[in-house]
Amino acid sequence: MERIRLGMVGGGKDAFIGAVHRIAARIDDKFELVAGALSSTPERSVASGEALGLKRVYEDYKTMAVREARRKDGIEAVAIVTPNHVHFKASREFLKRGIHVICDKPLTSSLQDAKKLVKAVEDSNVVFVLTHNYTGYPMVRQARQMIAHGEIGKIRVVQAEYPQDWLTINQDIKQARWRTDPTQSGLGGSTGDIGTHAFNLVCFVTGLEGESLAADLQAFVSGRQLDDNAHVMLRFKGGARGMLWSSQVAPGNENALRIRIYGDLGGLEWAQEDPNYLWHAPFGKTKRLITRNGAGAGDSAARMSRVPPGHPEGYLEGFANIYSEAAEAIISARAGHSPPDEVLYPTVYDGLKGVQFVAACVQSAARNSAWVRLD
Amino acid sequence: MERIRLGMVGGGKDAFIGAVHRIAARIDDKFELVAGALSSTPERSVASGEALGLKRVYEDYKTMAVREARRKDGIEAVAIVTPNHVHFKASREFLKRGIHVICDKPLTSSLQDAKKLVKAVEDSNVVFVLTHNYTGYPMVRQARQMIAHGEIGKIRVVQAEYPQDWLTINQDIKQARWRTDPTQSGLGGSTGDIGTHAFNLVCFVTGLEGESLAADLQAFVSGRQLDDNAHVMLRFKGGARGMLWSSQVAPGNENALRIRIYGDLGGLEWAQEDPNYLWHAPFGKTKRLITRNGAGAGDSAARMSRVPPGHPEGYLEGFANIYSEAAEAIISARAGHSPPDEVLYPTVYDGLKGVQFVAACVQSAARNSAWVRLD
Amino acid sequence: MERIRLGMVGGGKDAFIGAVHRIAARIDDKFELVAGALSSTPERSVASGEALGLKRVYEDYKTMAVREARRKDGIEAVAIVTPNHVHFKASREFLKRGIHVICDKPLTSSLQDAKKLVKAVEDSNVVFVLTHNYTGYPMVRQARQMIAHGEIGKIRVVQAEYPQDWLTINQDIKQARWRTDPTQSGLGGSTGDIGTHAFNLVCFVTGLEGESLAADLQAFVSGRQLDDNAHVMLRFKGGARGMLWSSQVAPGNENALRIRIYGDLGGLEWAQEDPNYLWHAPFGKTKRLITRNGAGAGDSAARMSRVPPGHPEGYLEGFANIYSEAAEAIISARAGHSPPDEVLYPTVYDGLKGVQFVAACVQSAARNSAWVRLD
Amino acid sequence: MERIRLGMVGGGKDAFIGAVHRIAARIDDKFELVAGALSSTPERSVASGEALGLKRVYEDYKTMAVREARRKDGIEAVAIVTPNHVHFKASREFLKRGIHVICDKPLTSSLQDAKKLVKAVEDSNVVFVLTHNYTGYPMVRQARQMIAHGEIGKIRVVQAEYPQDWLTINQDIKQARWRTDPTQSGLGGSTGDIGTHAFNLVCFVTGLEGESLAADLQAFVSGRQLDDNAHVMLRFKGGARGMLWSSQVAPGNENALRIRIYGDLGGLEWAQEDPNYLWHAPFGKTKRLITRNGAGAGDSAARMSRVPPGHPEGYLEGFANIYSEAAEAIISARAGHSPPDEVLYPTVYDGLKGVQFVAACVQSAARNSAWVRLD
Repeated sequence: MERIRLGMVGGGKDAFIGAVHRIAARIDDKFELVAGALSSTPERSVASGEALGLKRVYEDYKTMAVREARRKDGIEAVAIVTPNHVHFKASREFLKRGIHVICDKPLTSSLQDAKKLVKAVEDSNVVFVLTHNYTGYPMVRQARQMIAHGEIGKIRVVQAEYPQDWLTINQDIKQARWRTDPTQSGLGGSTGDIGTHAFNLVCFVTGLEGESLAADLQAFVSGRQLDDNAHVMLRFKGGARGMLWSSQVAPGNENALRIRIYGDLGGLEWAQEDPNYLWHAPFGKTKRLITRNGAGAGDSAARMSRVPPGHPEGYLEGFANIYSEAAEAIISARAGHSPPDEVLYPTVYDGLKGVQFVAACVQSAARNSAWVRLD
Repeated sequence: MERIRLGMVGGGKDAFIGAVHRIAARIDDKFELVAGALSSTPERSVASGEALGLKRVYEDYKTMAVREARRKDGIEAVAIVTPNHVHFKASREFLKRGIHVICDKPLTSSLQDAKKLVKAVEDSNVVFVLTHNYTGYPMVRQARQMIAHGEIGKIRVVQAEYPQDWLTINQDIKQARWRTDPTQSGLGGSTGDIGTHAFNLVCFVTGLEGESLAADLQAFVSGRQLDDNAHVMLRFKGGARGMLWSSQVAPGNENALRIRIYGDLGGLEWAQEDPNYLWHAPFGKTKRLITRNGAGAGDSAARMSRVPPGHPEGYLEGFANIYSEAAEAIISARAGHSPPDEVLYPTVYDGLKGVQFVAACVQSAARNSAWVRLD
Repeated sequence: MERIRLGMVGGGKDAFIGAVHRIAARIDDKFELVAGALSSTPERSVASGEALGLKRVYEDYKTMAVREARRKDGIEAVAIVTPNHVHFKASREFLKRGIHVICDKPLTSSLQDAKKLVKAVEDSNVVFVLTHNYTGYPMVRQARQMIAHGEIGKIRVVQAEYPQDWLTINQDIKQARWRTDPTQSGLGGSTGDIGTHAFNLVCFVTGLEGESLAADLQAFVSGRQLDDNAHVMLRFKGGARGMLWSSQVAPGNENALRIRIYGDLGGLEWAQEDPNYLWHAPFGKTKRLITRNGAGAGDSAARMSRVPPGHPEGYLEGFANIYSEAAEAIISARAGHSPPDEVLYPTVYDGLKGVQFVAACVQSAARNSAWVRLD
Repeated sequence: MERIRLGMVGGGKDAFIGAVHRIAARIDDKFELVAGALSSTPERSVASGEALGLKRVYEDYKTMAVREARRKDGIEAVAIVTPNHVHFKASREFLKRGIHVICDKPLTSSLQDAKKLVKAVEDSNVVFVLTHNYTGYPMVRQARQMIAHGEIGKIRVVQAEYPQDWLTINQDIKQARWRTDPTQSGLGGSTGDIGTHAFNLVCFVTGLEGESLAADLQAFVSGRQLDDNAHVMLRFKGGARGMLWSSQVAPGNENALRIRIYGDLGGLEWAQEDPNYLWHAPFGKTKRLITRNGAGAGDSAARMSRVPPGHPEGYLEGFANIYSEAAEAIISARAGHSPPDEVLYPTVYDGLKGVQFVAACVQSAARNSAWVRLD
C-alpha cells in the first residue's frame, strides 16, 4: 500500500500537539507528511516546515490548499492542528477541494461555525476525522464493545471527569495563552479544552446521547476570562444520568481523565493515565481487571493494539489508532466505497455535539445552572 | 479510670450497626455496656439483651431511660442505633434525664425533628455525639490539620462521593427494607444514608460551610420510593465549589467514600476503603503519599492511632475513635469542665446540617435542580 | 458465655505489642484481662499493672503463675508478650500449672529451647497458641481455602517478603534495642522478627512444608550483630520452590509483608498493608480482585470478618481473630473436647518450624549459602 | 537531517519483535527501513520483505550484508531481530563491513560467541547497540540519575523480578518454540529471555557490577528443556546484595518486570507495566511519586519523553528511545566523533554481562546453587 500523502496546518515549533500528530501519523506507517503551513505567520511557517525537512513548505494554509489541489502528487489529507478559532476556516479550504481533513478538537470556537462546518462536510465528499484521540485507546474500545453487547445492562449512571492542574496559577506560556483567550479558544475554557473530551468519551463508550445539562462554571484564577473549573450534571436520552467535572486547577492531577459507567448489570471504570486496564464489576460477582490484549479482552481492543499484554501502550499509540482509522477510511474512499464497519473515528457530528456541550455549559452557568437542552 | 457505663437502644440480632457500636465502645476500654433495649419489640429486645449477656435488659428505651436514671449505678451514656425515625424520640428521653447520648446518623428523619433535637440538647447539660464515624479516621484528621494549617491554601474545589452497589436490585433484607422506607428513613435514600456522611466529611475536613446546592435525584430501581442515586452541585460560603455523588446502584463499589480537596496551593485525596493513606499534592512539587503514623504524618493522626505505620487500622478503629472522643468529653463533663481542644466529634449541629442537606437535595430535585440554600 | 480470665506477662509501658494483645483480646469480648506481671523489673511490673487497672498485679511471672494457679478465680490463660528469650521459661511456668498460653513469636530465642517447649506442651494438657497474627487476616484464610480446594492447582512457586525500613539507621529505642541484641532476640535479626512471619504465612496458606533453604544474611548497619537483611531461597517438600526476603533496611517499606503463590492453574497475591484484597489470577482468564466479605469471597473469610465489604478491617482485627480462635479452643478445652475443625491457630509446632527456619538461615549463611535442611 | 538507512535481519511475518523494532525505528523519524532479509528461509524472507514494501529484499542476511555494503546508498545500520543463536553470525557479517548493528538481546546463545562478538566489535569501527529496551524508559533514566546524584545513598539491597505467565503450559506457537529450544535460545530459558533484562536493568540503574550469584533453576512444565523459573541471589562489587526472580510460569503476570533499589538514604521502586511512575522514599520522609515529566522529574527523563505528564508513554516509546540513542551515536559516528555524554545505550559489553549472567545461573544450578563469579 502506498502511504497517504499528508499536509499539516499549524503545529510549528513549540506547538505540543503538532509533534503528537506527526508521531501518531508515523507509528503505523500509513501516512507520509509531505507539505505544511505550520504557523499563522508566513516566516515561522516556512522556518518550521524547513526544520522538519518537509518537501513542500507554504506560507499559509490557503496557498497550500490551492496549490496542493492542483498537483498530481498533492496531499490527499490534511491535519489541522491550530488553535480552535482557525479550525473552521482552514477545514473549509481543504474540504471544498476534496482533501480529507483530520482536525483537532474542539471542532470550532463557536456553535455557528460548527454548524457551518457540518454543512461543509455534508456538501463535500471527503473523510472528516476529529481527533478525540481518547476514543483510540484499546480499552476504551473494549468498554464500548462490552456495553454494546449488554454486559453491564441498561446504563443508569455515568461519572466522567477530566482534572488537570497546570492552570492552578497564571501561566505565561503559549499553550496557556491561547487556551485562556476567548478570541482563540471560544466560549469554553476547561469545558472546551478537556470537558469536550470527557463528554465525547462517555457518549462514545456508552452509545448514549446527551439530552440536557446543568452547569456551574468558575474561573478561579484572578483575571481569567474562561472557565477553569466546571461542574456539570447530565441527563441522557433514555433516562441515564451523569456528572462531569473538568478542571485545570486541581493540584496533583496531570491528565486524569476518567470514566465510570454503571448499568443495572454491572460497572466499568477506565482511567486515561493507566490506560491498559479496564475494571469490570459484574453485579454480584467478583471484580475483574481486564488488561489490553490480556485474557478476557475482546477483538475490538486487539484490533487497536500492537504489542502483547503487559507491555503498556500509551497516549501516542491511542492517537495513532485514530490516524489508522482515518487511513482505513481514506483508503476505502480512494476505492469508492465505505470503510468496514469496525472502523470508528469521531466525526464532524461528534464535533458539533462537543461545541453544543460547551455552549450549553456556558448558557446554563449564565442562567444559574438551569437545565439547557443539548440539541 | 472507671469505665463509662453505657446503655444501648436498638442493635439487636441481625442489626449490623449495633455490633459495630459495641466493638467500637470496647476497643479502647473506656466503656462498659451494661444495659439495653435492643429492639422495637419487647420480646426481641429482651432476647437480644440476654444473648449479649447484658446486666440489665429492658423492653423499651423509655423504660430504660426512666429506670436507669434512678439507679446510682445507672448508665451514664446511651448509644442510639435504631432506624432514623427513632433517633429523635429516643434521644429526648435520655437527654432530659441527663444521660449522655451517642446517636447514629442521620440525626433524624425530618428537619422538624432535627431542629427540636438541637433545642433539646441545648436545653440539657449533656454530651451529644453523632457517629459520623468517618471523621474518626486518622488520615481524615491529618487532612483536616493540614488544611487548617494552610498547607493547600484557600480551598477552591471539593469532590465528594460515596458510591455503593448493594441496592442495584431490590433486596428483601432488613438492612435494605428500612433504608428504603420513607416512614423509617425519612426523606432521603442514598442522600440520607451515605450522602450525609460525604457532606459531613468534607465540611469537617475543610472547615467550610455549605451555602446552597442543586441536586438531581433518581430512584433507578423500579418501585423504590427514595433516591438511590444523587448528583449534587455544591456552593460553599467563601466561594469554594463542589460536587457530591451518592449512589447505592453503582456496581463494583462497596463503600467507596472518597474526598478530594483542591486549594490554590495544593490538593489532598483520601479514600475510605484504603484509609491509611493520604495523598498530598503541593502544587508544582512531587505528589506525596502520607501514611498513618508514617514519616510526615502529624500529631492529629497520631492521636487517633494505635499501631505503627504499615499495620493498617480500619473502620472499627475509626469508629472507636469517635467513642474515645466521646469518652473524653464525658469524662470532662463528669469533672464539670470542657474537653480539651483537640477532642473532636460530630455534634448535634453537624447532625442538623446533615438533615438540612437531605432536605435541600429533595427540595432542589423537586424544583428541577434549582439552587436551594443550606441554612 | 463467661469471659476467659486472662493474665499477661510483659507488655508494660512503652511496649507496643502488649497494647496490641490487650486490644485484640478485647475486640470480640471473649477475654477479660485480670492479672499481670508486665515487666522484667518488679517495680515497673507493678506500676504498669496499676496503670492499667488490673485486679491482680504481680512482681514477676513466676509468682503470678504460682498464685493464680491456686485461686479458684485464677487466670485460665496467659498472654506472653516479652522479648524472645523469656518465652520459653515463662511458658513453662504456666503450662505446668495447666494454664493455657498465648505466646508471641518467635517461639523461643534458641532451637534448643524450642524443642523443649514442644515437649513441655506435649506433656501438658493445655492450649498453646503462637501469635503469628497474620494468619488471622480474613483474606489469608480465603487464600488458604482456595488453595486447599485446588483453585490454583499444584503449587510451583512461592514468593514471600517482609521488608521494613525502621532499622535503616541505628535506633536507640527500646523496640530496636532488644531486637538487635542476640541475648534477647536469639540468633536471628530480621529473620527472627519478621522472616518467621513470612515463612509461617506461606506455609499456612499453601499447606506446604519447607524442605531446605539457602540464605545470604547481612547486617548492613555498622556494629549491628544480627542480620538486618536476608535473602533466602526455599525448597518445599513436593517440589515447589520459593524465595523469601526479610529486611529492616528497605526505605519506604513500613510492614510490607507480601505473599505471592503460583500453581499450575493460577496465582494468588496478598499484601498485609492492604489486607482486605486478594488477587486471584486463574491461568488464561481475567484477573479477579476478591474483597473481604465481597462477592466471590468464601466462608473462611466471612468467619473471620465483622463488618461488610468496603469497610476495611485491619491489623488489630486480624490479631483479634487469633484471640478468638484461641478462645474457641479454650472453651472446647473447658468442655473437654477438641475445637471444631474450622478453628485454626498457629501451634507450638509452627513455632518450632519458625525457630528451625531462623537457625537454618544462620547456618546456611555461615556456610556461604549452602542448602540446609529444615527438619 | 537525512534519515539513517536501515536494514533488518529477521522479523518476518508472525515475528512479534520485528514489528516492534520497525515502529520503534519510525517513531522519532530518524531511520528509514530500506532493506531486509526477514526470515531464515529464502522464500519467506522475500515474501515478508515484499509484504512490507521494502525497497530491497534479500534471501538471506549474508547476501544483504555483501550487496548493501557495495551500494552507495546501502544501509548504514542493521537491526538483527532473529532468535538468539543467529545474533553472533549475523552481527559479524555487518560489523566487518562497517555497518552499524542494533541487535536484540540476549547478545548470543553461548558465552563463547559472546566473547567473540565483543572482539569483533572492538576490531570494527561501528556502533553496536543491544536492545535492552527497558533502559529506554524515561523513569528508568530518572532513577539512574537520582542514584548517580546520591539521592538514595550507598546501595545496599536490590530486588529485581521479571515474572510472566505465558509458558505456564506448553504453548505450541512460534514465539514459544524457539524460546524453549536450547539450539536456538542457548543455555537459558527464562534467565536468558527475561532474566537478562532484569539483571541488565538493575546494573544500568544502580551503576553496580555483579560479582557472583547463586541460582536455583527449575523447568516446571513437563518436558521443557530450559528453565522456566529462576531464583537467584546476587552479590555486587562493593557489598550490595540482591535477589532476582525470573519466571514464565507465574499466572497473572504479563510482563511484570519490577526493580526496587534501597540505599542507606532512601529507596526507589519502578514497575515496567506502569512505567510513567517512580516511587522515591527518602528515609525518614514521606514517600513521593515522581511522574514522567511531572513536577520533580529531572532532565534525564525529560530527554527521553515526548508528551506532557499524565499522557502515558509506553513500551514502544521506550524502545524508540533506544533507537534514538542509536541514531545519535550513528550520526556522531558519521561525523567522526563520539556521541554526547548523555547518550546512553546498552553495549556489547552489557551483552556479554548478560550472557555471563545466564551461564553463571546455569552453572550455579548445576552445582546445587553454589556461588559462581560473574566475571
